Order: sequence, then structure tokens, then C-alpha cells
Amino acid sequence: MLIGLSILKAAFNSFGDPMKKSLSLILAAVAAALALPAAAQFAKPEDAIKYRKASLTVIGTHFGRVGAMVNGRVPFDAKVAAENVDLVADLAKWPWTAFAEGTDKGETRAKPEIWKESGKFKEAADKFQAETLKLQAAAKTGNLDAIKTAFGATGASCKACHDTFRKD
Amino acid sequence: MLIGLSILKAAFNSFGDPMKKSLSLILAAVAAALALPAAAQFAKPEDAIKYRKASLTVIGTHFGRVGAMVNGRVPFDAKVAAENVDLVADLAKWPWTAFAEGTDKGETRAKPEIWKESGKFKEAADKFQAETLKLQAAAKTGNLDAIKTAFGATGASCKACHDTFRKD
Repeated sequence: MLIGLSILKAAFNSFGDPMKKSLSLILAAVAAALALPAAAQFAKPEDAIKYRKASLTVIGTHFGRVGAMVNGRVPFDAKVAAENVDLVADLAKWPWTAFAEGTDKGETRAKPEIWKESGKFKEAADKFQAETLKLQAAAKTGNLDAIKTAFGATGASCKACHDTFRKD
Repeated sequence: MLIGLSILKAAFNSFGDPMKKSLSLILAAVAAALALPAAAQFAKPEDAIKYRKASLTVIGTHFGRVGAMVNGRVPFDAKVAAENVDLVADLAKWPWTAFAEGTDKGETRAKPEIWKESGKFKEAADKFQAETLKLQAAAKTGNLDAIKTAFGATGASCKACHDTFRKD
């Protein structure tokens, strides 16, 4: 959904001013049509909120298990680390469509910036996904130093998004 | 952890009465040692409860998306179905260690039977995991009828566990 909109906006901005006017109507109609599937994934806004919180909790838990090894709190086990990283990477692409329009109210720490600056939010989510793939590649090598580096970069991408888009 | 205890109990029951007495002390000590890793995954019981609820919410959401196709509520898309099923199968093995000893109180619908009949609970969890693997195999074929059959069996394994081990 966000990807669809970004492509449309890029296409839109490539046209001249007279063309933009009529295109803006088409764009609005297509955007509305595209918005449907994402919203339709959840029957109610609170379902979307519950789901995205749940998926981020699961991501955080398994990322934390890798962190415990990276920080030496539990002994490093390459297989266990890789299993946890795989799950983080598998989950990383999913939470974002649950930040659909109309899900900004209720039991959520989501900031209005998510919808006001949706391009930046998408960038932050993409960055996180990209870092989890690098972490997955590092975990496959079984090299703790490589995992530490990729873990740090992934953690930084979590923090950057939370700092900007999540209430304290 | 549950697996470890089951093996120990099976070994224990294979001995005669005089042997059982001294073995019971060893068993208790080993069980305590084995209990550590599972409990140590979570700093507090409420973290374990939050995690297992979150992971089951995510499983339920993605299983539900497959269900929407199976029931004809949304058009069948083999790729999307397989992606959702993959995530369900990836997640299926994780929630169970979060049902550790001492996590029976608080904001949970977990019934005491989970700990009283831990063997049966493990069987139910194993059954669910096995069904998700069959569903994954079915989803890989892209055949909707095969997916429907495996979806039904997986759903039945969810229900069986919920009926026995979850409060209404």
C-alpha cells in the first residue's frame, strides 16, 4: 500500500503543472482503491493496533535473545542465534500495513508523524527490514563479531524509528 | 524444557520402586536445572505472558488471512496465502516455552491444566506444529483444495488446544 502510493507519487511528480491537475483526481481515486486492501486486512482499527503491537513484541523478544548473546549475558549459540534472527527477518516486513489510516487513536503509542510523514515512516521501516536481512546473512556465517556489527546496526534502525514515530 | 521433562519422566517410570526413591531426588534436581533456561528467556512472568499472547495473536492474524481465502471472503492468491502460511509455520514452534512454571497467574486465559497435564499440552502444541507444516506443504502446491483441507486440520488443532487449555 505504502509502496503503491510512493510509486504513484513519483509518477505524479514527473508530470508538468497542467497535467498535474487532472492527474491529482486520478491519483486520489487510485489511492483510495489501493487503500482498501490494507484497511480490509483488519475488521476494526483496534485489531490493527493489537496486531502491530503483537508483531513488534515478538520481534523485540527474539531480537532481545540475540542481544543477550551479543552482550555476553548468555553463552553464544550460533544455531539458536540464527533461528531467532530468521524469525525477526521473517516478521520484519509485516507490521507496517497495520499502520493504516484511521488507526492513530486508541491504545497506541504511534505518533501522528507516521501518517503525516508516511514517506519517512516507510523509509524507516524499509531500513529496519534491510538491516534484518544483513543480520540474517551475518547469523548464517556463525561469526559472532559479524553478528555483533549487524545487531548494532539493526538495533540503531529500531531506535531511530521509535525516536521519531513512537511516543515515550 | 517440556521435552526434557517428558524424557526424564519416561526414564523414571521405567525403574522399580526402590530405585524410584533415590532417583526422585536426582529427577527433582535435574528438573530444576532444566527449568532454568526456559524461565530465563523472560525476566518476569508477565513478560512470558505478554510474549505468548503476542505470538499467538500474530499466528491467528496470518492464519485468519489464509482463512479469508479458504472461505472465499477474499480472492485466492496463492503467493499471498503461501507467505502467510510460511509465517504461521515459522512462528508455530515458539510460544510454548513461554508457558513456563510460574506464568499461570496474571492477565492470562491459560488454564491450570497446562501445567497439571503438561504432557497433553505438549502433545497439543506438537500436533499444531505438525499441522502447520502440512499446511505449508499444501500452500507450496498452490492448490486451493489442498490448502482448504490442511487449513481445516490446522484450525481443528488450534480449537482442540483452546478448548482444553484456554479459559473462555
